[in-house]
Amino acid sequence: MPDTPLLDQVHFPADTRGFDIPQLRRLADELRAETIDAVSTTGGHLGAGLGVVELTVALHHVFETPKDILIWDVGHQCYPHKILTGRRDRIRTLRQPGGLSGFTKRSESEYDPFGAAHASTSISAALGFCAARDQKGESNKVVAVIGDGSMSAGMAYEAMNNAAETTKQLVVILNDNDMSIAPPVGGMSAYLAKQVSGGAYRNFRRFGKSVAEHLPRPFRNAARKAEEYARGMIVGGTFFEELGFYYVGPVDGHDMENLVPILKNAAAITDRPVIVHVVTQKGKGYAPAESSADKLHAVAKFDVVSGQQSKSISNAPSYTKVFGTELIKRAHLDPSIVAITAAMPSGTGLDLFGQAFPERTYDVGIAEQHAVTFAAGLAADGMKPVCAIYSTFLQRGYDQVVHDVAIQSLPVRFAMDRAGLVGADGATHAGSFDIGFMGALPGMVLMAAADEADLAAMIATSLEIDDRPSAFRYPRGDGVGVEIPELAAPLEIGKGRIVREGTTVAILSLGTRLQESLKAADALAARGVSATVADARFAKPLDADMILRLAREHECLITVEEGAMGGFGAFVLQLLAGKGALDAGLKIRTLCLPDVFQDQDNPVAMYATAGLNAEHIAAAALQALGVEATRAVRA
Amino acid sequence: MPDTPLLDQVHFPADTRGFDIPQLRRLADELRAETIDAVSTTGGHLGAGLGVVELTVALHHVFETPKDILIWDVGHQCYPHKILTGRRDRIRTLRQPGGLSGFTKRSESEYDPFGAAHASTSISAALGFCAARDQKGESNKVVAVIGDGSMSAGMAYEAMNNAAETTKQLVVILNDNDMSIAPPVGGMSAYLAKQVSGGAYRNFRRFGKSVAEHLPRPFRNAARKAEEYARGMIVGGTFFEELGFYYVGPVDGHDMENLVPILKNAAAITDRPVIVHVVTQKGKGYAPAESSADKLHAVAKFDVVSGQQSKSISNAPSYTKVFGTELIKRAHLDPSIVAITAAMPSGTGLDLFGQAFPERTYDVGIAEQHAVTFAAGLAADGMKPVCAIYSTFLQRGYDQVVHDVAIQSLPVRFAMDRAGLVGADGATHAGSFDIGFMGALPGMVLMAAADEADLAAMIATSLEIDDRPSAFRYPRGDGVGVEIPELAAPLEIGKGRIVREGTTVAILSLGTRLQESLKAADALAARGVSATVADARFAKPLDADMILRLAREHECLITVEEGAMGGFGAFVLQLLAGKGALDAGLKIRTLCLPDVFQDQDNPVAMYATAGLNAEHIAAAALQALGVEATRAVRA
Repeated sequence: MPDTPLLDQVHFPADTRGFDIPQLRRLADELRAETIDAVSTTGGHLGAGLGVVELTVALHHVFETPKDILIWDVGHQCYPHKILTGRRDRIRTLRQPGGLSGFTKRSESEYDPFGAAHASTSISAALGFCAARDQKGESNKVVAVIGDGSMSAGMAYEAMNNAAETTKQLVVILNDNDMSIAPPVGGMSAYLAKQVSGGAYRNFRRFGKSVAEHLPRPFRNAARKAEEYARGMIVGGTFFEELGFYYVGPVDGHDMENLVPILKNAAAITDRPVIVHVVTQKGKGYAPAESSADKLHAVAKFDVVSGQQSKSISNAPSYTKVFGTELIKRAHLDPSIVAITAAMPSGTGLDLFGQAFPERTYDVGIAEQHAVTFAAGLAADGMKPVCAIYSTFLQRGYDQVVHDVAIQSLPVRFAMDRAGLVGADGATHAGSFDIGFMGALPGMVLMAAADEADLAAMIATSLEIDDRPSAFRYPRGDGVGVEIPELAAPLEIGKGRIVREGTTVAILSLGTRLQESLKAADALAARGVSATVADARFAKPLDADMILRLAREHECLITVEEGAMGGFGAFVLQLLAGKGALDAGLKIRTLCLPDVFQDQDNPVAMYATAGLNAEHIAAAALQALGVEATRAVRA
Repeated sequence: MPDTPLLDQVHFPADTRGFDIPQLRRLADELRAETIDAVSTTGGHLGAGLGVVELTVALHHVFETPKDILIWDVGHQCYPHKILTGRRDRIRTLRQPGGLSGFTKRSESEYDPFGAAHASTSISAALGFCAARDQKGESNKVVAVIGDGSMSAGMAYEAMNNAAETTKQLVVILNDNDMSIAPPVGGMSAYLAKQVSGGAYRNFRRFGKSVAEHLPRPFRNAARKAEEYARGMIVGGTFFEELGFYYVGPVDGHDMENLVPILKNAAAITDRPVIVHVVTQKGKGYAPAESSADKLHAVAKFDVVSGQQSKSISNAPSYTKVFGTELIKRAHLDPSIVAITAAMPSGTGLDLFGQAFPERTYDVGIAEQHAVTFAAGLAADGMKPVCAIYSTFLQRGYDQVVHDVAIQSLPVRFAMDRAGLVGADGATHAGSFDIGFMGALPGMVLMAAADEADLAAMIATSLEIDDRPSAFRYPRGDGVGVEIPELAAPLEIGKGRIVREGTTVAILSLGTRLQESLKAADALAARGVSATVADARFAKPLDADMILRLAREHECLITVEEGAMGGFGAFVLQLLAGKGALDAGLKIRTLCLPDVFQDQDNPVAMYATAGLNAEHIAAAALQALGVEATRAVRA
């Protein structure tokens, strides 16, 4: 544990308000050491937090949190903030079962007025707080801190576009570290880089004045405006000023002596929203982070001295890697395959694809709406776009999936990684809803992989579907270790498979609960109950023949899926009801995610809580059959 | 029918390529007359089309459509485009059953390479075409036409942010008429207005050069940059140039003599995307449109000479108006109520609210993502936000509903207008999926109004729910004429009502199919089958007691809803399955929207096609009971 004499005296931000600059600097140093040490024991997001240590201290020093509202975008940079706001005693429970969230969270602290995890929400939320304050005639300040990566999302632009009309007091801190998770993309990013390289803050007034003095006669009455634009030229505010903001910057985000007075000035502005462009270094102050390509964005537990991370050992490749690898195989055979990611090249496995086919890989930044419709345009002109977006982030592009892809029946292929529960990232990152929201769309082909070989086959299947959209979901984590064929054959669309034949109970699994379903069948066999196990593979179109046969030939049918209500089990029920297959009675149960947002935990425990492990599947069957679910099954 | 000798010779755009400017002008005049006449017989969107008549002619003259790709944003301005592109013979079927769509539509014509209807998709789609062209090494041009209103959406920004990195050839026409449907909002709009008032296009080069010549010595080597910014000062390109575009404008969009050469120049640019800022007048050239406040944005059939629209007569107020009126009543009693619309004040009935409470009404522009999270911020700070967004447009803010509202259990109230099928606007505007995508969310309270009194009660209910989100859906069109109490009492959460008691069949309706359900019960009675009719009111939480009782006490249960599969009927089935209520058999059928995207038609016909009218409900019950559905029921 690091030596932190000053930090030890700071229990809440109010304790820092009397500090002078040297004290604030020392506090930041100690806070950095404490953050590194804490994350070394828990794993989690490191680089982002280290980059904002000085900013965190300065903000809590200048603003009267929690009365003043401080909203962090994404929230993965908030570990130092948590340490300063009464949560230091629990900081080594970060991302652990029952511990602190790895993001801001309202239920954790009054210093987290608005939770986050997905990017680019902070300015919108902050404007809500501004409007509420203005309605109530109160005078607290509102501050949003947003990274340059988050600025590529339309949502941030929508909020900026509304800021000046909504309120006269809002401070937006643009935390510009020139990278989010991956290197930055897009015009906004290039623009910001130009500003940072363009010159120092204090020069702009002099320059602007000079230009104005030298204006040609016919335009002299435009002098004020000229000054404004000349300022823009040097310090880059024009873009933001056009949207109605005051712009201040760029400011060195590690220089407390500059940061504090600039934040004080920004806090005093009450006639217009202000944006403070702060330049920080991701991973700042920790050599292993500074020298790492991704600035140690997210880490496992690690050794503080060496920076060496502990690695989990698995015999199976991750689904993500299988996706990337298989897509590369296919792309070698078919030049029309192109891949699209929204700022998650490594998270989706498209980093591999991008190395193999840089010209056929599009990273559009945090911009899922654009990603989907861009893919639709590619498909409309004959390419085979594969749009790889986590299940939870595809929610950002839902209207585009409906309106631009499904209604036009365009063959965009959606690779939905991180389907189901995701562990330490918690509720905000769970891929719970895609089966329902994608499966409801006419024409959609929706698959879920039961193992990595199935994933390979589904990629092949999806690429062959050229008259309508298709999607395949697969979970976070490692496969089950089955062999993947050299070149997987495509599946017959809408056909499931019987994995094990039985007589009394049919377990119909969609996705990677198949292993648990097989274990459940074993448990049932031990109780003398014979179970068929089937892998549905398709949530849409359903394998109606197989499902009707399962219903007809078994006393009990259990569906299992890693998704919310209104998904696969619901579709099966609606099929059976429509066919009259429930008329004479069927002991059917549809096991799905429970109707709650589940907090972070390890995935096995989360599925236990969700009631989707083998014992629950077996118990559901026994309960339906009227056999008491006793210890025998649980054992 | 207007006299159109030149237009009569133009069957396809190629026929205009040899025209000179005076001919193009004449063609535009005739095209305008034809558009007015056509819309006078069909109703539909008028003002937007009239504003782009010259632009439409100029674009098809300059670009080699359909080889060159022309994508219209929204598409409601495309009637002149349809007339010029081989569809004149069907132009008087616009928005009619079986007729031309009121928007661009791929299946209609090769001149519609990408369909639209929701705003702000065109640049993303166009970039997809650019990328496909570049991948294939082809040389066709790509053009997107987008209105200034659509520019408030984040999606347009996401696409602009990616344009320069994606391609070197793209022409974006910014069609700036200073209004979409409602007056414009936001910083971007103010910015564009400033550009338009800032000066004439041809002055900028001279001005830029002058500034550069007069630069102070220390900055002389920055002369090129200075010229760039000085240009920005006069003509406003800075914003777009920062994002990597060439900017040209503003250009008078009705002046063919300027428009054609500028478009030709823009078409020749192949080293960077270019944005051409065209200023047009909505409703141009038709006096009744020019003088109308909304420029005759959308009209019923009308008399060409007077501009007088035919009006449908109804004895009941529209649901939209009931919503607006009821919310005003409540807001008089509770100062914490605020309302949010995304550019649809009149469409949502919030125009009334805005007149009564201008300070408590937020029109955020076409920006549903921001609208939702802004509302979440308001709720987090103790206000009672009512977020009124059409069902179909709420798809744009889905992730925000999940991540910012539901996970945080914030009491945002969603008023979901235009739920179910919508008639002439067709598939793109149908509110088909909200029951599923909202109902899947833990903690959500989801209601559907059966009539206008119910809607009033649901507004009251929603406003009382202060610990979690709630939503109520209601259809486009007029209520059924029931009396609305002076101040509707809130409903008990999760409680439905039995509307009519019977014995054999239970019809469980959610929403405005209740009237059809009652008629179905009559039809069943005529066949000697006694039917209970229940109004579920809540899709979430379900009235489990009532539903289980209906299942227990009837031989057959029919659910009816105006939504897609995976919605209310699915939830009912999952409830019953989980409770074992299907174990012994229940003749259950879940009637919902069919698994297709339904084309425009009148709503009654659409629900007939969907199989959701009284006769279908009765037939489903009889079929389930094993009684043949004969003429007796249909009669």
